[in-house]
Amino acid sequence: MLVLSNEDVEKLLTMDECIAVLEELYLDLAEGRALCSPRVDNLAPCGVDGAYYGFKHMGGAWPRRKIQALRINSDIITHPAHEKKLRRVKLPLAGGRWVGLVELFSTETGELLAIFPDGAAQRLRVGATNGLAVKYMARSDAARVGLIGSGWQAGAQLMAVLAVRPVREVKVFSPRRESRDAFAREAREKHGIDIRAVDTAEECVRDVDMIMSATSSMVPVLQPEWLSPGIHVSCIKTQEVDGKFLGSCHRVIMHTKLQGKQRDNILPGTPNIIPQHLKGWWNEDGFRWAEFTDLSDLIAGKAPGRSDNREITCFVNNVGLGLQFAAVGALILENAGKLKVGHQLPAEWFTESVHP
Amino acid sequence: MLVLSNEDVEKLLTMDECIAVLEELYLDLAEGRALCSPRVDNLAPCGVDGAYYGFKHMGGAWPRRKIQALRINSDIITHPAHEKKLRRVKLPLAGGRWVGLVELFSTETGELLAIFPDGAAQRLRVGATNGLAVKYMARSDAARVGLIGSGWQAGAQLMAVLAVRPVREVKVFSPRRESRDAFAREAREKHGIDIRAVDTAEECVRDVDMIMSATSSMVPVLQPEWLSPGIHVSCIKTQEVDGKFLGSCHRVIMHTKLQGKQRDNILPGTPNIIPQHLKGWWNEDGFRWAEFTDLSDLIAGKAPGRSDNREITCFVNNVGLGLQFAAVGALILENAGKLKVGHQLPAEWFTESVHP
Repeated sequence: MLVLSNEDVEKLLTMDECIAVLEELYLDLAEGRALCSPRVDNLAPCGVDGAYYGFKHMGGAWPRRKIQALRINSDIITHPAHEKKLRRVKLPLAGGRWVGLVELFSTETGELLAIFPDGAAQRLRVGATNGLAVKYMARSDAARVGLIGSGWQAGAQLMAVLAVRPVREVKVFSPRRESRDAFAREAREKHGIDIRAVDTAEECVRDVDMIMSATSSMVPVLQPEWLSPGIHVSCIKTQEVDGKFLGSCHRVIMHTKLQGKQRDNILPGTPNIIPQHLKGWWNEDGFRWAEFTDLSDLIAGKAPGRSDNREITCFVNNVGLGLQFAAVGALILENAGKLKVGHQLPAEWFTESVHP
Repeated sequence: MLVLSNEDVEKLLTMDECIAVLEELYLDLAEGRALCSPRVDNLAPCGVDGAYYGFKHMGGAWPRRKIQALRINSDIITHPAHEKKLRRVKLPLAGGRWVGLVELFSTETGELLAIFPDGAAQRLRVGATNGLAVKYMARSDAARVGLIGSGWQAGAQLMAVLAVRPVREVKVFSPRRESRDAFAREAREKHGIDIRAVDTAEECVRDVDMIMSATSSMVPVLQPEWLSPGIHVSCIKTQEVDGKFLGSCHRVIMHTKLQGKQRDNILPGTPNIIPQHLKGWWNEDGFRWAEFTDLSDLIAGKAPGRSDNREITCFVNNVGLGLQFAAVGALILENAGKLKVGHQLPAEWFTESVHP
C-alpha cells in the first residue's frame, strides 16, 4: 500500500497526462462504463465555537483502469465574513494542517492500493477538467486569456489552457495587487509567457478569447456585459456566474448533472452558520438544468460543441466527481511504479484473513 | 495514525466494554446526538467470470466521543450455489485475503486517527448489539440458550449472552456435526460452561429461554411452531426469520429503521447474478415496519420492553450501522493508548499543508 504526499503527487502528474486520462474517463462515463457513487456530506458539532465538523466523501469506479476511488474530506469549517461576504474557511486543526485524502482500491482484487492527500490531485483534476472544456469548446485559434484569480487554482487553470491552446497573451486580475503581481511574475518565469496583471476584472476580460475564472468567490465575478463574440468562458465553481450571465451565453456546458450534491446530513446541535449564499441558481427549483449538456457527452460526441466563431460558450465546473480521482489516481499509480516515490506499507496491514 | 490488525483489535476489546459503549451510543442516537451517514453500495464488473466488484461504505459521527467512523468494504463477490441455496461469498483475491477497513477520524481536529481491518470489530459489534437486546428484552432469569450456528459470529453471540444473563445451559446446532461438536468443545474450554451439540434446530430451541440465531443462511432457520411462552429470540440477519415468524412474536425490536440499505448503484456490464432471495419481507412494499421499535428507543426508554414473563420477544439485527464503528472505535483508541499496540505512522502522511 503506497502512501504519497502532495509533493510526490505533483511530481507524478503532468497537466498533459491529466487532461488525456480524464478525456479517456469521460468517454467511458458517457458510454456507461464508469460509475459515480453518491456524495455524502455529514455535518456535526465539533466543540469549536462558530465552527462545525464536516465529513464528506464521494467516489467512483472505473473498471477500464481497474480503480475504485474514494475521496474523503474531514474538516473543521467556519464561515468568516470578509468584506461583508461570508466565505467558507476550513481550520487547520490537524497539527496546523488539513485533512483531505484520496484512497484507491483495486476493482480486480479489492486491495487498498494507495492513500494520498487530495490537494495536488484536486487542483490538477479541476485544471484538467476546465482545460478539456477549453479544448472542446474554445475557438481553435483562441490565444488571449483573461484569468480571474491568482490563487492556487488559478495556477492550474493557466497550466491547463497553455496545454490545449496556442496562448500568446495572458492578463490576470485578482483584488489584491500584490497577489496578482506576484502571480504574473511567477507565471512569466515558470512558463515563459507574456502575462501581465491588470487592475479590474473588466479590463482583464476585454479583448480576450478565453476567460478563465478561478476564484473562491461566493458571489458572481463575471458580468454579461463583458462578453464579446466568440469568447469562451471557463468557471471553476457555480457561484462565479449567475443565471443571467448563463442566459447571455449561446452554449453552456456543465461538468456534470450526474452528481448533484445530496442534501446535507446534519446532526442537531450543529451551529446554524451555513450561509444562505451557498444556495443559488444551481439548486433553485425549476432552473433550466435540462438545457445544459454534460462535459462527458460533449467529449463523446453525443452533444454538439461550438457551432461557429462568433458563438459565446461557457463551461461551468459545477461540481466535482469522486470518479475523477479514479482517473488521476490510475495515472499516479502508473507513474509511481516507474519513479519509486512514496512510502510502501505492507499489504497485510490493510487486508484480513477473515471473510468480512 | 495508528494501524491495527484484527489480532490487535481483539486484544483491545472485551465484550463487556463493547456492550457498555454501544449502550452509551444508542442513548445518544435516540436523543439525536449521533449521526448515521447513508450507506453506499457500488457494484461494477471486476474482470473475474461470475463475480462482480462491490464497494460499500457507511459511517457515522459521535461527537460525545469526538469520533467520525467510516467502514469500507472492497470485495470481489460471487453467489455460488450450496445445496440449491445461493450464498454470498467474497473471494480472497487480495493476496489470499479480504478487504474490509474501518477508518476513524477526529471530529475535533479532522485527523485520521486509525485504520484497522473490520473483521474483529464487526464480529464484536454484532455480538454486543444482540447482547444489548438480550439485556433489555429477555427475562431477567433467562438461563438456557439455544444457539443456531457454530461459525465465527456464533462465538460472539455466545460471549454476548454470557455477558448479560446468568447462563446455566447452552445447546448448539449447525448442519455439520463436526462443526457443532468442535464449537461445543471449544466453548466449554474457553468459557467453562455447560454446552452440548444437538442434532436438529428444533431440538436446539426446545426448553430454552433464549434462541440466539447466528447463521449466514439466506432462508429462514426458525419456525413459529418452535416458540414457547416467555422466550426471547435473537437474529443476526433478517433472512433467518420470515414475516410469519415475526407475526408469532408479541414484541419485535429491530436494530434500526434509520439506515435501510440504499438502492445499489450498479454499473452496466456488472454480471446479473445477484440472487433474488436477497429480497424478502424486509424490503417488501407495505411491510409493517412501523410496528417495530428501534433498539435505541428501547434502550432510551422511549419504547416499552418486555411486559411480562410469558411474552415472546424477538430482536432482529436487520442492518448494521456505520455509527457502531464510531463507538467500538472510540473504545479501541482508548485502550490502544494504554496497551501500545499496532503501528504508529507519522500524522503528516495523512494531512496536508494546503486548504483542500
